[in-house]
Amino acid sequence: MNSDIRKLLEDVQSGAVSVDDALLKIKMSPFEDIGYAKVDLHRRVRQGAAEVIYGAGKTPEQIAGIIESMCRHGQSRILITRMNEEAAEFVAKTTSLDYRKDAKVGIVGGFPEPDGIGKIVIATGGTSDIPVAEEAALTAEILGSKVVRLYDVGVSGVHRLLAHMDLIMEASVVIAIAGMEGALASVVGGLADCPVIAVPTSVGYGASFGGISALLSMLNSCASGVSVVNIDNGFGAGFLANRINHMEVKK
Amino acid sequence: MNSDIRKLLEDVQSGAVSVDDALLKIKMSPFEDIGYAKVDLHRRVRQGAAEVIYGAGKTPEQIAGIIESMCRHGQSRILITRMNEEAAEFVAKTTSLDYRKDAKVGIVGGFPEPDGIGKIVIATGGTSDIPVAEEAALTAEILGSKVVRLYDVGVSGVHRLLAHMDLIMEASVVIAIAGMEGALASVVGGLADCPVIAVPTSVGYGASFGGISALLSMLNSCASGVSVVNIDNGFGAGFLANRINHMEVKK
Amino acid sequence: MNSDIRKLLEDVQSGAVSVDDALLKIKMSPFEDIGYAKVDLHRRVRQGAAEVIYGAGKTPEQIAGIIESMCRHGQSRILITRMNEEAAEFVAKTTSLDYRKDAKVGIVGGFPEPDGIGKIVIATGGTSDIPVAEEAALTAEILGSKVVRLYDVGVSGVHRLLAHMDLIMEASVVIAIAGMEGALASVVGGLADCPVIAVPTSVGYGASFGGISALLSMLNSCASGVSVVNIDNGFGAGFLANRINHMEVKK
Amino acid sequence: MNSDIRKLLEDVQSGAVSVDDALLKIKMSPFEDIGYAKVDLHRRVRQGAAEVIYGAGKTPEQIAGIIESMCRHGQSRILITRMNEEAAEFVAKTTSLDYRKDAKVGIVGGFPEPDGIGKIVIATGGTSDIPVAEEAALTAEILGSKVVRLYDVGVSGVHRLLAHMDLIMEASVVIAIAGMEGALASVVGGLADCPVIAVPTSVGYGASFGGISALLSMLNSCASGVSVVNIDNGFGAGFLANRINHMEVKK
Amino acid sequence: MNSDIRKLLEDVQSGAVSVDDALLKIKMSPFEDIGYAKVDLHRRVRQGAAEVIYGAGKTPEQIAGIIESMCRHGQSRILITRMNEEAAEFVAKTTSLDYRKDAKVGIVGGFPEPDGIGKIVIATGGTSDIPVAEEAALTAEILGSKVVRLYDVGVSGVHRLLAHMDLIMEASVVIAIAGMEGALASVVGGLADCPVIAVPTSVGYGASFGGISALLSMLNSCASGVSVVNIDNGFGAGFLANRINHMEVKK
Amino acid sequence: MNSDIRKLLEDVQSGAVSVDDALLKIKMSPFEDIGYAKVDLHRRVRQGAAEVIYGAGKTPEQIAGIIESMCRHGQSRILITRMNEEAAEFVAKTTSLDYRKDAKVGIVGGFPEPDGIGKIVIATGGTSDIPVAEEAALTAEILGSKVVRLYDVGVSGVHRLLAHMDLIMEASVVIAIAGMEGALASVVGGLADCPVIAVPTSVGYGASFGGISALLSMLNSCASGVSVVNIDNGFGAGFLANRINHMEVKK
Amino acid sequence: MNSDIRKLLEDVQSGAVSVDDALLKIKMSPFEDIGYAKVDLHRRVRQGAAEVIYGAGKTPEQIAGIIESMCRHGQSRILITRMNEEAAEFVAKTTSLDYRKDAKVGIVGGFPEPDGIGKIVIATGGTSDIPVAEEAALTAEILGSKVVRLYDVGVSGVHRLLAHMDLIMEASVVIAIAGMEGALASVVGGLADCPVIAVPTSVGYGASFGGISALLSMLNSCASGVSVVNIDNGFGAGFLANRINHMEVKK
Amino acid sequence: MNSDIRKLLEDVQSGAVSVDDALLKIKMSPFEDIGYAKVDLHRRVRQGAAEVIYGAGKTPEQIAGIIESMCRHGQSRILITRMNEEAAEFVAKTTSLDYRKDAKVGIVGGFPEPDGIGKIVIATGGTSDIPVAEEAALTAEILGSKVVRLYDVGVSGVHRLLAHMDLIMEASVVIAIAGMEGALASVVGGLADCPVIAVPTSVGYGASFGGISALLSMLNSCASGVSVVNIDNGFGAGFLANRINHMEVKK
Repeated sequence: MNSDIRKLLEDVQSGAVSVDDALLKIKMSPFEDIGYAKVDLHRRVRQGAAEVIYGAGKTPEQIAGIIESMCRHGQSRILITRMNEEAAEFVAKTTSLDYRKDAKVGIVGGFPEPDGIGKIVIATGGTSDIPVAEEAALTAEILGSKVVRLYDVGVSGVHRLLAHMDLIMEASVVIAIAGMEGALASVVGGLADCPVIAVPTSVGYGASFGGISALLSMLNSCASGVSVVNIDNGFGAGFLANRINHMEVKK
Repeated sequence: MNSDIRKLLEDVQSGAVSVDDALLKIKMSPFEDIGYAKVDLHRRVRQGAAEVIYGAGKTPEQIAGIIESMCRHGQSRILITRMNEEAAEFVAKTTSLDYRKDAKVGIVGGFPEPDGIGKIVIATGGTSDIPVAEEAALTAEILGSKVVRLYDVGVSGVHRLLAHMDLIMEASVVIAIAGMEGALASVVGGLADCPVIAVPTSVGYGASFGGISALLSMLNSCASGVSVVNIDNGFGAGFLANRINHMEVKK
Repeated sequence: MNSDIRKLLEDVQSGAVSVDDALLKIKMSPFEDIGYAKVDLHRRVRQGAAEVIYGAGKTPEQIAGIIESMCRHGQSRILITRMNEEAAEFVAKTTSLDYRKDAKVGIVGGFPEPDGIGKIVIATGGTSDIPVAEEAALTAEILGSKVVRLYDVGVSGVHRLLAHMDLIMEASVVIAIAGMEGALASVVGGLADCPVIAVPTSVGYGASFGGISALLSMLNSCASGVSVVNIDNGFGAGFLANRINHMEVKK
Repeated sequence: MNSDIRKLLEDVQSGAVSVDDALLKIKMSPFEDIGYAKVDLHRRVRQGAAEVIYGAGKTPEQIAGIIESMCRHGQSRILITRMNEEAAEFVAKTTSLDYRKDAKVGIVGGFPEPDGIGKIVIATGGTSDIPVAEEAALTAEILGSKVVRLYDVGVSGVHRLLAHMDLIMEASVVIAIAGMEGALASVVGGLADCPVIAVPTSVGYGASFGGISALLSMLNSCASGVSVVNIDNGFGAGFLANRINHMEVKK
Repeated sequence: MNSDIRKLLEDVQSGAVSVDDALLKIKMSPFEDIGYAKVDLHRRVRQGAAEVIYGAGKTPEQIAGIIESMCRHGQSRILITRMNEEAAEFVAKTTSLDYRKDAKVGIVGGFPEPDGIGKIVIATGGTSDIPVAEEAALTAEILGSKVVRLYDVGVSGVHRLLAHMDLIMEASVVIAIAGMEGALASVVGGLADCPVIAVPTSVGYGASFGGISALLSMLNSCASGVSVVNIDNGFGAGFLANRINHMEVKK
Repeated sequence: MNSDIRKLLEDVQSGAVSVDDALLKIKMSPFEDIGYAKVDLHRRVRQGAAEVIYGAGKTPEQIAGIIESMCRHGQSRILITRMNEEAAEFVAKTTSLDYRKDAKVGIVGGFPEPDGIGKIVIATGGTSDIPVAEEAALTAEILGSKVVRLYDVGVSGVHRLLAHMDLIMEASVVIAIAGMEGALASVVGGLADCPVIAVPTSVGYGASFGGISALLSMLNSCASGVSVVNIDNGFGAGFLANRINHMEVKK
Repeated sequence: MNSDIRKLLEDVQSGAVSVDDALLKIKMSPFEDIGYAKVDLHRRVRQGAAEVIYGAGKTPEQIAGIIESMCRHGQSRILITRMNEEAAEFVAKTTSLDYRKDAKVGIVGGFPEPDGIGKIVIATGGTSDIPVAEEAALTAEILGSKVVRLYDVGVSGVHRLLAHMDLIMEASVVIAIAGMEGALASVVGGLADCPVIAVPTSVGYGASFGGISALLSMLNSCASGVSVVNIDNGFGAGFLANRINHMEVKK
Repeated sequence: MNSDIRKLLEDVQSGAVSVDDALLKIKMSPFEDIGYAKVDLHRRVRQGAAEVIYGAGKTPEQIAGIIESMCRHGQSRILITRMNEEAAEFVAKTTSLDYRKDAKVGIVGGFPEPDGIGKIVIATGGTSDIPVAEEAALTAEILGSKVVRLYDVGVSGVHRLLAHMDLIMEASVVIAIAGMEGALASVVGGLADCPVIAVPTSVGYGASFGGISALLSMLNSCASGVSVVNIDNGFGAGFLANRINHMEVKK
């Protein structure tokens, strides 16, 4: 963007553009021209391998339209989250779609080679948490991370988790996903020495209150290095884990 | 009590008491005379070794008065919970009082020999939970149970708990006491094969909401065999644990 | 398990296994080999008569598959909770299933002879609480407890409960199940001298808030000896009651 | 008030007042002149014996000033609720004040002869509920009701309540006051055949949440004939009970 | 009941019954025989004109069965609340049923002549509150009260309410029913000088939270003489209002 | 209305109406006759262009009936909110209806020329908030305001909002509509120097709790000049914005 | 600001500033130089008469320092909200301060002549709401609005409010302030035809929950034209009311 | 630790230790000896520069004792959080303590050279959030991170934040700290392309509910890459940010 402004200034200097026209241009488009569009541009460059569509509340036709538009603009990998079966079937008519029913995730363009600094371990308390876990896993994978799945290691049988402690110790990021009492995050947080992202799920009944119990539990984790995302937000956890897993690329 | 009614009936049979007088007596005091007082009497017999005074909201003078009255009626062991220092100092002037400042518990008459079916293990997540734990421990001890203290074994360092797994395995009852995320109850519940009583504490800050987070966590425990008492209710947990620990005595 | 380690150490002593191989073996499988698997083994032995399947969120095919697998491994009694009619019909095609529609419970292999130390009394406040009560009752029965049902004895007609006070007095454990204001737990807790397990139910409307009102009421019970499980958690109450009812077996 | 309007209309009829002036007068003071002030006048007449001052948030000087002003206007009986000791001492300097420290209630002018249709029974779950109960009792008494106190009859010892069942049966209104789980309202509601007013109190700790637990419990009461007032609102309950207790006077 | 005990005592006196047999009889059936059953009997006598069936959660067959059983025992008037159309159609096949679809109320046996001490005014804030209001109205009517309906007089157009102030002033009881902000109860409470029963309804959206907003509003009413029942509990309000409306009958 | 009273007074003056009859008439209809109906009349005059029907909970027949009645009384513009498709189809049979499916809004009589003092800018955080925004926009438009739509300018891409800052600066009122974290209101509130009306929406999942999160966020806005209406209350925001936008007309 | 950029561009055109320096300058200070600072400048110009200091959490020394600094920069009127007495005394040593103890508001420089389009009416439910009302009133007054105070007109005595209906009808904005059940906002909203700003207060006890009850009530107001600010936020209401009251000045 | 087991095995091999003794040793101390202590050891090595003491709830004497003990064991840097002034003064008598009163943080041994992969930017919404921010900053600094402070950039003046966008763009981690509506996290999350850790603070009043409003807002952030820690948990955020900022060191 700097080059755009520089060009404009050079044009003013050379007389090719009048002061008034330059002023107008600067004023009318402060963001596209002066630098804030870089945010979006930068993002596209940075995340590169994949664009994301949030499928909830969109019609099959809308989703298909967005995909088509993205492909036309050269996007090679697309992740669609919260995509229902009906939408998947509709899209699959015209696009090569890899649909994961369990996670409600659709993938266009396949997965890239992982290029992060390590592995992301995704642990769940129970088998009912797997849909959220898969949303996280597929998100991280399409963005370029290697993912290790460690499902059904809830703390009511803590030996199951401990039996895989080497995985925890080797991870660059751990995503701990659990409903009910959400204690997994604390136990994992106490074992791991990498960042731990906790995802409460709405799994449970009665006093689980749709995930509030797990959410509060995770926010109160007595272990350091744990942070929390919204209930059932597998995508957010996968996105953040991948970002952390690509930290060394930055500078 | 049966004997009171029997006596009355015999008096009716013998003519010593008229039908009307008997009827009046039965009607006017249905509980003391006819059987419900047995509840209280039975309790005193059953719990025998100790009477309990809930100290909160009572003046030092009131507490001293109740103690004196109990002693006059032959009560040899008394437990006072939620007793502040001022009350303890006042009572100690006239009674031999064993006051535990940390637990805010006063004891008159000392502890009996334990006669339960096993040991009660009391585990806490952190050191801040110890006052509640001591209230539970002293309650169980004065009622006749052997107590093993296992403090500061929170799940953010799960190896601390696992290092004492033999104690957990040998317990007849485990009381799991924790604030913040309250995950201790689930982990202990998964390790123990005896009844586990979970006590949420108001330890924590922010989203711990004065114990709500721990409470919800414990209610949602994915481990079987766990039940929960009120926030900070060490007395209730100790009382119930002792009751379970004397199960075989019953029949 | 000790024998496994002993064998390994003897092999080291005899030179049959090298130090490095032994070290690797100990490190790589700390739980299966060194003792934590005993937890699960112990459990199977201890609870012996029945294995439990949580049916919610499982397809009829999955439930049938788990049952088949369990039977293949010699499991003779199986309890399936939260099992819907569709699953029951599917399972019944290939397995002899005793399905209780009201409680949403399926039973394979029938009930054992009760061998606990006493009777478990299950009291409900109303008739709408019966499904939860039956889940508790069938759980306790298949695990080997004798159960006495005392339904519809809510506190708005306290004489109904008092009319059965002998049952309450004779129980080894009482399970008090109620929705709405959940007052049953307190009244029962004041009458009984055995452990009381309170189960709030989601029965009610308006300010019952899906069981929160009953839950809070039970947690605040002014009666000693009462503890609480999750809303509608009949299984948890039945499991814990049976555990307490087998206390004397332990040592 | 009718006479005011009548006078105005007569003046219009006689020509003493013009139509425009009459119109203006009617329009400008619709309530004082046309009838709504009768509400307050009626009230003073109706409740006659006592005026009420809500003492919370008022300085001793303000309270004393209001009392003085009321007396000057011929008020012979005054009830001051939520009056702290400091205010009581200040007022007592100049007025003959009957101050009840426990209930934080001050009374000027003493109590009238009770003239209601029956007795109001005020029952409390515990001794800690007594301040609220006394606020209710004194309110009802100064308004002209006979009150029977039945304190510390909580449902964890239901025989204590049942022992006084005749009182409950004879009451014209029962006020049931309890904190913690608030079950007293349901039990009393099941026994009484008169209106029952339930008052939740903020007595308790942990999951009592300052009276919320008792409040919800009472709102969900499975007994018919029970209604609820605000937490700790002894005055409101006493006022309403007295109103019901004077029902026959109305027509 | 007194006569039962008197008979027993006379039999003991005469020798017709032994002391042991009498003792057993007294102990085994403390409530049916000694007096608590009088509660229920008394109720039937007292409320006489109608028995109530809570239809929610009951099948059409169950409701029909209960009605038939009641009729067989001589019950001439029956009120069924929360009765859905399917149940009404089923019952109507065999019984003469007056079904009010709006209120989900069914009536068998018609309404008695009103015999209360005055009129019950039922006011609603909007038209959406009418189903709850009708449940209250029909309940009070079948129990013997005269009811005046004053619907859609919400406080956002306070003149609509004031236009009917004479009705409010003449009422023996007012039931104020409103959802959303529930302010009607306070305004009515300020106008009326009789007991006011407030019924919050679940009408509204967003921050009405299913009736919580109206409930809290009503509990906090700054007007004296107002008490509250559960959200949508028209029956409870009608029942209580009728009870108050028959106060003078009692003594 | 004044003329009605004036007429009555003139009749009294002339002797055509007696004082008693006039008194009765004034007393019996204090609001219709004496001035409070002016509130409603005034409203009709003031808002003139449109009458509003709240469609939720009304049958298609009821809505059609109200429309017909309004038209018969000369109402030329009608807005129907929360109108479902079924109702729209029914009404369209007999009335020329402009139905906006997205906003669930029906319009009869078309839009007037805008005559407010400026433009109302309606900004939304995302595309899912558009239905609420359209309800607000159409409400303001039918009442006579010019509306500028600025959709999908949520704060996670704050440059999108800033790119339109001139619109914000020129607005006479801004309506900020957002779900999830509701931060849009604060950012807009900081940029605008006109009144800002914040509308939380129920858009989101998990810890958005049906709009509570956005609601709280907006109430806590650190920007001055922001006020809040109920969750999803597009109508209320549009109505209020239009009222503010016609301020200068008043005096 | 345009002139700053124009100057820079002219300097580039003339060669007085190099392209690189201009680029740096534009990039380094996008807001001060390019236009967003205008927001703040505009504000100062617009609100002119007064600057506001939020006193909560600031030491007396800090407040005095800010006042001194403002005065040095030519600010002639300053409003300090949430200012405690200690701070007022400290400031009064060096500045001429008009301190209103009740409202916790300090004023420097006195009040301007009101220049709004009409009068702001501030109504409160009770006398305890007055501190919040005064904060609102003084805020509006120092910003240039005429304020009419209408205190203690709560809906439990609705005639008090109606007696002042002319004031309500004449207002350009009404601020309705109430705690407890907050019904005042709805009643006022139904009477007024101008914007109504509702302010819930934390006045009350028990189920008022520190203002939540009033807040919910106001959000659910069934009257159109009502919006809500944070609990006890008198300043926010006064600020917004003044802004609306100066609407016509804008264009 | 491996060397300890290896030594033991070698001793078994050589016959220096018997199989039984080795078995006992392995069994009695499964964690210290067999590998889980590595967690703690590893941590100390990993975080190296500093040990942390949570000061809340500890007496000055306890804190001083722990510091002394740590120093004796060779710990050169110590961070004490939530340390009150009294404790600081006590500790300062015997230890060279750098106490930051605002953040309630004490530092022993000074700060190390930063060695992370980039800079941590800590942004706050207001000045009241600074104590939490400083706790985060000092935590990250003593653990070896470079921190840039960006205080008082709340979204109600979004230009303040945007003026520092280069800092945001350059950060390796951003910590966004805000109370009230917590919108800062979303705006920052939309601008940054690094991990963002959101910290809700208890700053605010009324509907901020002690930080709940900010917490919910942050959990619902519509920006990707944002996660949340507990209310006021500056330490947790600083600890996690530092961990992420040292990611590249790991492998």
